[in-house]
Amino acid sequence: MRRPAPAAIGAALPLAVTMGEPAGIGGEIALAAWALRRRTLPPFLMIDDPARLAALAHRIGLDVPIEPVDGPEDAAAIFLDRLPVMPLPLPAVPVPGRIDPRNGPAVIAAIERAVALVRSGRAAAVVTNPINKRALYDCGFRFPGHTEFLASLAGGDAHPVMMLASERVEGGAFRVVPVTVHQPLAEAARTLSTDLIVRTGRIVARALRELEGIAAPRLAVAGLNPHAGEAGALGSEDGAVIAPAVAQLQADGIAARGPLPADTMFHADARATYDAALGMYHDQALIPLKTLDFHGGVNATLGLPFVRTSPDHGTALDIAGKGVARSDSLEAALLMAARMAANLARAAMRAETRDGQPIVAHG
Amino acid sequence: MRRPAPAAIGAALPLAVTMGEPAGIGGEIALAAWALRRRTLPPFLMIDDPARLAALAHRIGLDVPIEPVDGPEDAAAIFLDRLPVMPLPLPAVPVPGRIDPRNGPAVIAAIERAVALVRSGRAAAVVTNPINKRALYDCGFRFPGHTEFLASLAGGDAHPVMMLASERVEGGAFRVVPVTVHQPLAEAARTLSTDLIVRTGRIVARALRELEGIAAPRLAVAGLNPHAGEAGALGSEDGAVIAPAVAQLQADGIAARGPLPADTMFHADARATYDAALGMYHDQALIPLKTLDFHGGVNATLGLPFVRTSPDHGTALDIAGKGVARSDSLEAALLMAARMAANLARAAMRAETRDGQPIVAHG
Repeated sequence: MRRPAPAAIGAALPLAVTMGEPAGIGGEIALAAWALRRRTLPPFLMIDDPARLAALAHRIGLDVPIEPVDGPEDAAAIFLDRLPVMPLPLPAVPVPGRIDPRNGPAVIAAIERAVALVRSGRAAAVVTNPINKRALYDCGFRFPGHTEFLASLAGGDAHPVMMLASERVEGGAFRVVPVTVHQPLAEAARTLSTDLIVRTGRIVARALRELEGIAAPRLAVAGLNPHAGEAGALGSEDGAVIAPAVAQLQADGIAARGPLPADTMFHADARATYDAALGMYHDQALIPLKTLDFHGGVNATLGLPFVRTSPDHGTALDIAGKGVARSDSLEAALLMAARMAANLARAAMRAETRDGQPIVAHG
Repeated sequence: MRRPAPAAIGAALPLAVTMGEPAGIGGEIALAAWALRRRTLPPFLMIDDPARLAALAHRIGLDVPIEPVDGPEDAAAIFLDRLPVMPLPLPAVPVPGRIDPRNGPAVIAAIERAVALVRSGRAAAVVTNPINKRALYDCGFRFPGHTEFLASLAGGDAHPVMMLASERVEGGAFRVVPVTVHQPLAEAARTLSTDLIVRTGRIVARALRELEGIAAPRLAVAGLNPHAGEAGALGSEDGAVIAPAVAQLQADGIAARGPLPADTMFHADARATYDAALGMYHDQALIPLKTLDFHGGVNATLGLPFVRTSPDHGTALDIAGKGVARSDSLEAALLMAARMAANLARAAMRAETRDGQPIVAHG
């Protein structure tokens, strides 16, 4: 059958962008992205306080007409002229750099609303601005971070996988996935398991197929120890834990290789041999990505039943409100979210055509 | 007093280049460096088997007239016309890619001779070609690697520190030092100590002063855990082990900073704020260096009473003898060794002028 035009499969749906910590740089990078680049960005709507965005635009000298909207339906149509905002009034006027616990519940509500819009088919994907976990703990937030909260909103059995990606490095897209994330290093080494690597690899391979349209994704799996353990001389986990995971992924039909010495797998020639690298711990995956592209990386959560991306930086309280924060990463997150949502819609439509019933991706 | 001309303080002394594993790429990269770049490289002499080098040059199609010499004294004078070689005949004809244990003792002897030449003031510095440790274990070699063997040749109390450096990255010289090196990751985390970090930092600061002429070297010290432990939430070592080491280095008058989140300290803007980065384990230090410059990195051993550099790669048995190995890293090692030796000679001369007696650097 004829492939549907992109417009028919979701391009008209806007992205839902959350407020994030209102004392941080989230608002101003969204305003800057709209003001400077809206013609090359996918349409998005913000879930935020219209009055505070208008005041912030004025403060940093950007001309951004704010349009409060009841829902995302008109957002795409007005996007080139005005920034659509679904109102979420803040109880306290945000002061850049100074977190106010009274605004915490609204930060959380913005995330919930964005997820609800996407899950009900009214928005294409969720793009989240950075939050400050500690500020939210005082409001009863009970998750280690954004990602885990999104997984909980998606239903209890989602296994969220964090992927960082840059499209500005030599040779094209560079994607890294830390298999363990926010754990002390020694604990990460101790808790690393074959099962965790396999589950992560499967989710990454599926996501690259459905969200990035890569038919046969190639995964490079890092070793844990120096020189990937040098055949056991420098540690046992590479052979005992990682190698069996690579074998299982291969048995699944996934083009996985490893364990590879981590220090020699991230230069341009090496990167050209895979679509995503699995690092065994936080810094192993994030060091090469942030070394090569500090400002333009995107954080995408895989394994959710919807597309979620985020800029790859924090709230940056120290520079908030000054108009100096760079919007590169948010812009890259918007572009990646729109592309992934379109690919996912196409994959769903193909599956529907084939099987007669819809799929839920990554459920 | 008038500063002595470089020629008077060691520039006339050649570098001593060791054979390395004769089944690997050491010979051919040295031949290629001489054949292609001798006019821009400092004079060096090889400690190797002249017949095998001549055969190798023929095999890979390089025109390199070999000149056997009794010592380094004439090496600089003939260097532009012929490659000087202090003969060390091999008992077995080397076959590229196939290690022959009969040649092991000569591999070791080449290192011993190079060190003896430098320590007796007949050569400027040692540049080592890669060896294969396992092959040497059969010959009674009892060291974890090259570096430890050199430290032993230097006398028992040397604390050798491995530094990797590249001068081909954006912003200039990039130097990384792993505080722990060839240990399983979990063991590295466990054995990391304040004392080890302080000793390493002192040696690095002194070496950057004496060997690189940096008056007040700036050291960036990485955290061990994600986000440098996030104030204890993601591990205790950053606060309990690393922070006190940084404080001690500062008390010594060294411009040290840290512990810093490792993922955000290696992009160009961050690199511009320090002269060397101390990583807490092998991959943390080597990933950013090899990601940015896979082919041109140099391995320098600090903390020895002489200058030693090495190309930052292994024996590459798989491509040996094919004439495809890149000599970038060896060439960079030669240039760095010559510069460091000249700086060290200047520092020694200044100290002599000042104190009336010579210093021994890094003793």
